[in-house]
Amino acid sequence: MLTQLGSQAKQAAALLAIAGVDEKNKALLAVANALEDKKEYLIKENQQDIENAKANGMSEALIDRLALTDERVAGMAEGIRQVAVLDDPIGEVTDMKKRPNGLLIGKKRVPLGVIGIIYESRPNVTADAFSLTFKTGNAVILRGGSDAIYSNTAITNVIRETLEAQGITPDAIQLVTDTSRETATKMMQMNGYIDVLIPRGGAGLIQSVVKNATVPVIETGTGNCHVYVDKDADLKMAVSIIDNAKTQRLGTCNTCESLVIHRGIAQEAVPAIVDVLRKKEIEIRGDEDSCKLDSHIIKATEEDWGTEYLDRIISMKIVDNLDEAILHINKYNTKHSEAIVTNNYQSAQKFLNEIDAAAVYVNASTRFTDGFEFGFGAEIGISTQKIHARGPMGLEALTTTKYIIYGDGQIRS
Amino acid sequence: MLTQLGSQAKQAAALLAIAGVDEKNKALLAVANALEDKKEYLIKENQQDIENAKANGMSEALIDRLALTDERVAGMAEGIRQVAVLDDPIGEVTDMKKRPNGLLIGKKRVPLGVIGIIYESRPNVTADAFSLTFKTGNAVILRGGSDAIYSNTAITNVIRETLEAQGITPDAIQLVTDTSRETATKMMQMNGYIDVLIPRGGAGLIQSVVKNATVPVIETGTGNCHVYVDKDADLKMAVSIIDNAKTQRLGTCNTCESLVIHRGIAQEAVPAIVDVLRKKEIEIRGDEDSCKLDSHIIKATEEDWGTEYLDRIISMKIVDNLDEAILHINKYNTKHSEAIVTNNYQSAQKFLNEIDAAAVYVNASTRFTDGFEFGFGAEIGISTQKIHARGPMGLEALTTTKYIIYGDGQIRS
Repeated sequence: MLTQLGSQAKQAAALLAIAGVDEKNKALLAVANALEDKKEYLIKENQQDIENAKANGMSEALIDRLALTDERVAGMAEGIRQVAVLDDPIGEVTDMKKRPNGLLIGKKRVPLGVIGIIYESRPNVTADAFSLTFKTGNAVILRGGSDAIYSNTAITNVIRETLEAQGITPDAIQLVTDTSRETATKMMQMNGYIDVLIPRGGAGLIQSVVKNATVPVIETGTGNCHVYVDKDADLKMAVSIIDNAKTQRLGTCNTCESLVIHRGIAQEAVPAIVDVLRKKEIEIRGDEDSCKLDSHIIKATEEDWGTEYLDRIISMKIVDNLDEAILHINKYNTKHSEAIVTNNYQSAQKFLNEIDAAAVYVNASTRFTDGFEFGFGAEIGISTQKIHARGPMGLEALTTTKYIIYGDGQIRS
Repeated sequence: MLTQLGSQAKQAAALLAIAGVDEKNKALLAVANALEDKKEYLIKENQQDIENAKANGMSEALIDRLALTDERVAGMAEGIRQVAVLDDPIGEVTDMKKRPNGLLIGKKRVPLGVIGIIYESRPNVTADAFSLTFKTGNAVILRGGSDAIYSNTAITNVIRETLEAQGITPDAIQLVTDTSRETATKMMQMNGYIDVLIPRGGAGLIQSVVKNATVPVIETGTGNCHVYVDKDADLKMAVSIIDNAKTQRLGTCNTCESLVIHRGIAQEAVPAIVDVLRKKEIEIRGDEDSCKLDSHIIKATEEDWGTEYLDRIISMKIVDNLDEAILHINKYNTKHSEAIVTNNYQSAQKFLNEIDAAAVYVNASTRFTDGFEFGFGAEIGISTQKIHARGPMGLEALTTTKYIIYGDGQIRS
């Protein structure tokens, strides 16, 4: 069954690779309209997922994530319209240079081909993933969670019908309806059919993909992000950045989970930071030295340094100098987003140079690591691996290049 | 044992990432000199590999590949000197743009970190891989074949001693001396230690890495490369390109293994092509239609279309039009290098657009797919996968980027 989906996706990808920009944008707008037109159907199908979720005792919070409403369908449609107006990266030729033998060699931006996406829960990812992969001329094979199977199937049906009515191959999007673990594993091993696999979900899903996949994977990851308050920090700015990085949203991968404070500013900084965080009901777990500075700090364990809480908890460590801060962060971080607050030029540059992470900030909140905030106009996820794409991934991350070479009979000697 | 190598490599990588260009180039030149100075030691150790190879009944050709001579040691040293004079890609910042909120966001080129390389036979790969990974500020963990263990150990020893004398961490290069299959598999799963794994060798090795690796892999691959002779080809040019692409070197991945001929030129082209290939003792296996055009053509089987011969054999297929040629090539190729010979503008552009391969040529030999021929000054391999790097990989393929962000207190609203 998967092999058939794979063959169909490959055939679709060959057609999509040469589809024109206008043709793709027109289809995206038609899909956005169709989703709104069919919202009653979508919400009705979604209701079945909700009922199953209730019967299975799913938590209120998760059921809320799963639910489709008029507003959320409108949001999906709006997201697709925003992708339609973005520049199409496909077809651009760069770095074209003439070699001494007269060969003209350049790089042409082309689609990846067939992209597999394995994701959890929220059905809007179905529409989202389609719009980004379709805009970049790729075919997509989606495998959502069993919790959202009715919703995902309904959304996929609407998209496929709309594409067909537009004269475009509906196999641009295909959904794996068998949501068993075995089928997911088989999908991770569809070499020859899937060019790249992108998991979107929690640590368990990512780990399963990293362990089982034999096709190339772009790992989107967890974030144990730090804010380091340097000796030469503007204390007011430091408190404001920490407050924002930790509390603006608790459950995102670019949320700050750990504070590192220079000993030279700790006496003044720690009580001010504790004060603002406690007002937001954040529990602070610190090393011995920080516990001495504020009685509200609970003693941290070794495990705390490496934990992505996604909760009302943060860790805190006092260091003697910038070198110790960098060592600590590079040891425990997940290579996501790290920030320094300082007015010292050398400290800022050293931090930017030596911290190993997808995004390194001076005097700004880690919460900005995001495709929209970075100005890409879209985001398929945030890569924490080092190959292909690192950090927020926009449309370009869904493309590759091929070398094109213009000759006039050159042979190699 | 591997975990210890991994920890040491990570520590070395942190130091190498901030090493200066001059420091790295000076060390490379010192290593080149040291290899020449110690050539008697290297050749003596290599002799043990040669004796073992003879005792194990290795073929003359493979023993020749394995052997170190004065000339080959000089070649290794010269290769390292050439890498020393290349531009260092590390540290470049590109695409720096100001966002509406004042954040200044750019991409800084940085090393990948720890690179693993699993390779076969030829000991010069040891020096080669070191020079490219070191130049780009990476630490490397090498695992060569058991056939070359004495040679690889000796080369690694000389490099490590030289680095140490230069005040550079010798763990910039480490060799896995246990050449068992189990250890190789464990190396493919060193997540958290190895950032990228590059296999260099035959199809068996590549397949084993693709199947077993859980760390990110850059797949360097086999080449079933085609030359398509269009109806509007210059016949003399076509024959010259085919001769070069097939016979200039038989055993490389950019060697042409398959011909596709437009029916409109076949009657004239096929005998001319057969003539030049038969002079070089190449066997031609063709479809029924080509067999009719020349009695020296042997009937091809389905298997021939997908075979990388690396031998004095080539396949040939007659097609009715360019669409059929593109379909055939995209079905059977290994996404490596493909060429069209034509004087027709539309055919050339269509071929460039629709062929799915790392390098697509108009009127030139496929043999040019090579880091040196493309002007990179170096080559770590030719990638046939689509993510990270596609086609010949020079220094830049051994790097990644991180976002650096300059703020003045920005928080997200």
